[in-house]
Amino acid sequence: MSAGFSAVDHRHMARALRLAERGAWTTKPNPMVGCVIAHGEQVVGEGWHVRAGEPHAEVHALAQAGERARGATAYVTLEPCGLHGRTPPCADALIAAGIVRVVVAADDHSQRAGQGLQKLTAAGVAVETGLMQAQARQLNRGFFSRIERARPWLRLKLAMSLDGRTALESGESFWISSDASRADVQRWRARSGAILTGLSTVLTDDPRLTVRLEGDDMDADFVPPLRVVLDTRGRLPSTARLLTDGAAPTLLVHADDVVPAYDDGVNAFPARRLGAGLDLAAVMAQLAQREINEVQVEAGATLSGALLAAGLVDEVLLYVAPILLGERGRPLFGGVTPAAMSDRFGFRLLDCRHIGPDLRLILQPA
Amino acid sequence: MSAGFSAVDHRHMARALRLAERGAWTTKPNPMVGCVIAHGEQVVGEGWHVRAGEPHAEVHALAQAGERARGATAYVTLEPCGLHGRTPPCADALIAAGIVRVVVAADDHSQRAGQGLQKLTAAGVAVETGLMQAQARQLNRGFFSRIERARPWLRLKLAMSLDGRTALESGESFWISSDASRADVQRWRARSGAILTGLSTVLTDDPRLTVRLEGDDMDADFVPPLRVVLDTRGRLPSTARLLTDGAAPTLLVHADDVVPAYDDGVNAFPARRLGAGLDLAAVMAQLAQREINEVQVEAGATLSGALLAAGLVDEVLLYVAPILLGERGRPLFGGVTPAAMSDRFGFRLLDCRHIGPDLRLILQPA
Repeated sequence: MSAGFSAVDHRHMARALRLAERGAWTTKPNPMVGCVIAHGEQVVGEGWHVRAGEPHAEVHALAQAGERARGATAYVTLEPCGLHGRTPPCADALIAAGIVRVVVAADDHSQRAGQGLQKLTAAGVAVETGLMQAQARQLNRGFFSRIERARPWLRLKLAMSLDGRTALESGESFWISSDASRADVQRWRARSGAILTGLSTVLTDDPRLTVRLEGDDMDADFVPPLRVVLDTRGRLPSTARLLTDGAAPTLLVHADDVVPAYDDGVNAFPARRLGAGLDLAAVMAQLAQREINEVQVEAGATLSGALLAAGLVDEVLLYVAPILLGERGRPLFGGVTPAAMSDRFGFRLLDCRHIGPDLRLILQPA
Repeated sequence: MSAGFSAVDHRHMARALRLAERGAWTTKPNPMVGCVIAHGEQVVGEGWHVRAGEPHAEVHALAQAGERARGATAYVTLEPCGLHGRTPPCADALIAAGIVRVVVAADDHSQRAGQGLQKLTAAGVAVETGLMQAQARQLNRGFFSRIERARPWLRLKLAMSLDGRTALESGESFWISSDASRADVQRWRARSGAILTGLSTVLTDDPRLTVRLEGDDMDADFVPPLRVVLDTRGRLPSTARLLTDGAAPTLLVHADDVVPAYDDGVNAFPARRLGAGLDLAAVMAQLAQREINEVQVEAGATLSGALLAAGLVDEVLLYVAPILLGERGRPLFGGVTPAAMSDRFGFRLLDCRHIGPDLRLILQPA
């Protein structure tokens, strides 16, 4: 850790973070990583990690820099790997190219941690870590959650009216939010490793839970999120579009005391019961074992409320349509009934912005 | 009306509008008016209307300009008056000072309308109107509402939780929103001609409905808003702080078939009944006759919902605290129960911003 980084260091790392983010839809389950190689202000190479199993960010940046890498500084948003994974170690590549200084934003606490930095230091490369670490960790909050907490980062997506209702009393709710909001949801889906919902939503809406974006945004590298349905009693009909459309893999979760009537070939796993439903923490642990970094939950009030009550919600993505559905409309969360103001559930408001006619809020539990 | 205004014209008028706004808390019931006198880019005089009965913006600006007013352009946010009111006509003053061109943002459709501009034109002054008219009308939306619609501009102030509730089921709600939001509410109160509430709010909270701001913001020119209570059955207890604190005038409104038991000296007027309450449009017409430009409503769900249903709400000022009060919490509006999505009540979102930990939205009925 160095005491101070220069403005030039910050500029190059900020660029490396932006490069890293280009992999948001394609690197899963690997972390997003960006790399900039520079002599002072002059950038000689840039790269980012595109897809798991393919070259890391450093390799792309070194290839672009070529001979100009000799004597340069490499800015990497995540500690370079030191051991052979599916690709050769990046630390070796940086040393071989003649890089004399490596600046790292965030440590990597996965199994390879520390090895890369030790190798670089042993080879006489100056290593400095911690530049823009908070931003680098925020970018890969899903990856870090899986590695460090053994559960995915859970984003709860909700849409409501201005008066906090998700549907009319009758259940009618089709298209509460605007085209612009629905397009925005697609971009959040695209960076998720899984989209999770409950059986009641499937029975009501028969959703596809796929990522639908304009042509230019989608390419061959896109990794479609896994679709996960909590189906405690194992009742999901085989006619559900999630099972028939073949657009993305689907995983069902049923109670471990139930023998589900699924067709052959359906991907499912059992989970313990807890309270009125499944042990949601155990489900999340299972998803982390399946290398899911970020889960986006798009479910009804009951499951949303249960996840909140279980302390599993890391981020709320809330679309607010500027309409009133009225006092008899359906509530945002089920089972959330504080008895006194001191018991109320609190959030921190991270972001608010206009999305078309709607408002989009990003919140984290306080 | 001129086809085109220059960038310099725009800059001076924008400055005049900012000057006008300085009178927001003190000019009531007069409109806010600002004036800039300039030769080309060079400003030689500035002024704004401070208080009803005292000199208008043009007079202050001309006094500052002195001899330099000769041959200059005057930018005025509202058409200069042409007749003697409580002060001499500004049109005469502009002519006498040798102003050769007057640029006006908004016409004044009150009784004096047109007289000022005719006088200027007759004296050979070039008159151009309509520069930044929308901004000028927005600034004085209360004044224009009173003059053109014979009712005040009605701003509905509400505070709710993220899940659209104003209180717990028990009614407990004290301080849903933060210090920062409550201070912000005070600034909106300060520009209002009246603060309106219902009897049930008075019985529950015994509010003062005064303007409480830091010392520097308040001065001797401040015009405290009238406090108005809708008290259909004439039951407001004489011990209510609104009647005893003497901090600002209070006006009660009761049904015209009721003989209220108010003490002598209490200021009250009768209104027709309509539905379950009073004829709210008639109440608003009465307030306009009493020269109230902007009414800020701080009431419960029933009165808020009734005003909305009556089509009397012009603007909603909504503070959202990032907390959950739960599905049994009290609703934002009473009596708003659309039967189908096509009946839903819609708004246009004009502004969203962070106020301390809270969110503040400004909306207008769509």
